[in-house]
Amino acid sequence: MAPAILVTGGAGYVGSHTVMSLLERSESVEFEIVVVDNLTNAYRSDDQKKPEPLRIIEEMTGKKIHFYELDIRDREGLNKIFAAHSIECVIHFAALKAVGESVEKPLEYYQANISGTCTLFEAMRKHGVYKLVYSSSCTVYGEPEKLPLDESHPTGQGLASPYGRSKFFCEEIMKDLCRSDPKWMVISLRYFNPVGAHHSGRIGEDPTGIPNNLMPFISQVAVGRLKELLVFGNDYPTIDGTGVRDYIHVEDLAEGHVKAIKLFKQPGFSGFHAVNLGTGTGYSVLQMVAAFERASGRRVPLRVTGRRAGDVAANYADVSLALRLLGWRATRTLADMCRHTWAWQSAHPQGFRDC
Amino acid sequence: MAPAILVTGGAGYVGSHTVMSLLERSESVEFEIVVVDNLTNAYRSDDQKKPEPLRIIEEMTGKKIHFYELDIRDREGLNKIFAAHSIECVIHFAALKAVGESVEKPLEYYQANISGTCTLFEAMRKHGVYKLVYSSSCTVYGEPEKLPLDESHPTGQGLASPYGRSKFFCEEIMKDLCRSDPKWMVISLRYFNPVGAHHSGRIGEDPTGIPNNLMPFISQVAVGRLKELLVFGNDYPTIDGTGVRDYIHVEDLAEGHVKAIKLFKQPGFSGFHAVNLGTGTGYSVLQMVAAFERASGRRVPLRVTGRRAGDVAANYADVSLALRLLGWRATRTLADMCRHTWAWQSAHPQGFRDC
Repeated sequence: MAPAILVTGGAGYVGSHTVMSLLERSESVEFEIVVVDNLTNAYRSDDQKKPEPLRIIEEMTGKKIHFYELDIRDREGLNKIFAAHSIECVIHFAALKAVGESVEKPLEYYQANISGTCTLFEAMRKHGVYKLVYSSSCTVYGEPEKLPLDESHPTGQGLASPYGRSKFFCEEIMKDLCRSDPKWMVISLRYFNPVGAHHSGRIGEDPTGIPNNLMPFISQVAVGRLKELLVFGNDYPTIDGTGVRDYIHVEDLAEGHVKAIKLFKQPGFSGFHAVNLGTGTGYSVLQMVAAFERASGRRVPLRVTGRRAGDVAANYADVSLALRLLGWRATRTLADMCRHTWAWQSAHPQGFRDC
Repeated sequence: MAPAILVTGGAGYVGSHTVMSLLERSESVEFEIVVVDNLTNAYRSDDQKKPEPLRIIEEMTGKKIHFYELDIRDREGLNKIFAAHSIECVIHFAALKAVGESVEKPLEYYQANISGTCTLFEAMRKHGVYKLVYSSSCTVYGEPEKLPLDESHPTGQGLASPYGRSKFFCEEIMKDLCRSDPKWMVISLRYFNPVGAHHSGRIGEDPTGIPNNLMPFISQVAVGRLKELLVFGNDYPTIDGTGVRDYIHVEDLAEGHVKAIKLFKQPGFSGFHAVNLGTGTGYSVLQMVAAFERASGRRVPLRVTGRRAGDVAANYADVSLALRLLGWRATRTLADMCRHTWAWQSAHPQGFRDC
């Protein structure tokens, strides 16, 4: 059997772009790609076996993806997949991710994100797989004590949502795993704000319902699917009063995962490592809107409303560790982020349903 | 169907004493007792259906206990039990509890203590049961910033073990549950150091392997089952250099649970409440040994060895909230704790195997 990379949640937004990035690179040809996804946040048309993003990636790359429709809490199902493939390492995206929804449905979030993750770890250990790239979030930092946020910033304090807590708890669990057995190698990638789409415009973000995140909200307004953008607060102590975030192009982010996997080959590499993935630069909501209007040639009407509970004024990453440890840095610009989002959204006003 | 109280882990040490306390009280007669336990830490003789402590409690009280051998991660099994009984509230003890073991086996601890607890909560919600007494621990406070520890002391910081983290995570999950739905009523009882046995000496603590906790260690030395007591450090800044803890008689502790259940009837009671259960007084290891020697008339040889990682010098509780909220305070003395431990241990050198 050829060595394989297991990608949980590989049909989702960051997951599918990472699968694309793995298959686009000639040096990844040595690996087969195995995706498990329960399709909570992925579209599949009725006449296909594979979810749309994976079908499109296969078409674009001419390469095959092994796909299993499976919830990672299904212990037996996971064991069968580990038995059927020669899995070398796991990139673990599978999780629920809507901050607001997590406040309404905490139990669902803890079960999916904590119990699911522990069940995956048990299956990994049972099959001798100890290499893991974990999909974490800058949310674990809570309200920043200072900016930019580096990886030594305290985590877990003042977290505003069960979603954030679930990511923090998973990091703590992985640290305990690494302390208990030096065979574990864990790279926890703390994403800042992933945006954009594959430069082809053929895959992109396809949230269900009203988008929680700024960029899909902007692009759905620009394409006419939503009437106006809601801006949550313009009285923050920032350049123009709106919230400032570190947006990162999803293709840059995906490449961060490819770089992380290479670390596993480094002699002596072991233990838990948290690494920020961002650009290091923050943009305000209004700056993002302006950039998007430029890139798309469309106007994005907006309405300012109250602050959202749990939102911070600003955050952006110190990205020096990513460069030092992974040899990675973001190379795509804000204009790229907007252009590629628009290429995707304008060709697919209703997301993957339009494929 | 008569209303019932579900006790998870009801065959364990604190669980069985709480079942006893519930059945001893005439005002609890209205409730049936339903115990689920996976028997990880409970002994059952080959010729019995029920674990020993429950069999003995039935014999002593003349009352029946419904017993199910079940792991709380068994969703379907739990659903059947909720369907078969009219459960009013849940006292949730079921958990792995050995601090040292949790460092070696973090995944087992997180699965049992977090995933198990979430699965229990799902079953409760599914069956409209929102009243919960949770078995928490002073471990959630980490290293004390000041003494005595009251409930407003920060939790989750500098925790030394996956066990402690699992208790802290569960409290955070329960807070999120209560924020998501005002129907939830949660009382999280933060135990200090439970010791002693039922005053009859017929049930008591029966740890497997070398005891992790001081009192069973002392009593197993006194009864000749172990050669000498290991004292972990005598250079702490305490009265005699040995660690100081707030020991609480398990019958007092059990009664705290009975009081907690009564709170659920209080009009307007809702949300998450953490309450310390301790005596408010700390005793050193050497003070405990001296008291035990007096109570048992036996000598307890000891040997001082190095500090254990994660042990703090001293902790003891501020117990004023328990009095205010539950109308509860500990009434048994250190001499009671030692006398009852010795009554149990001397009659059962090998624990429940000697019944």
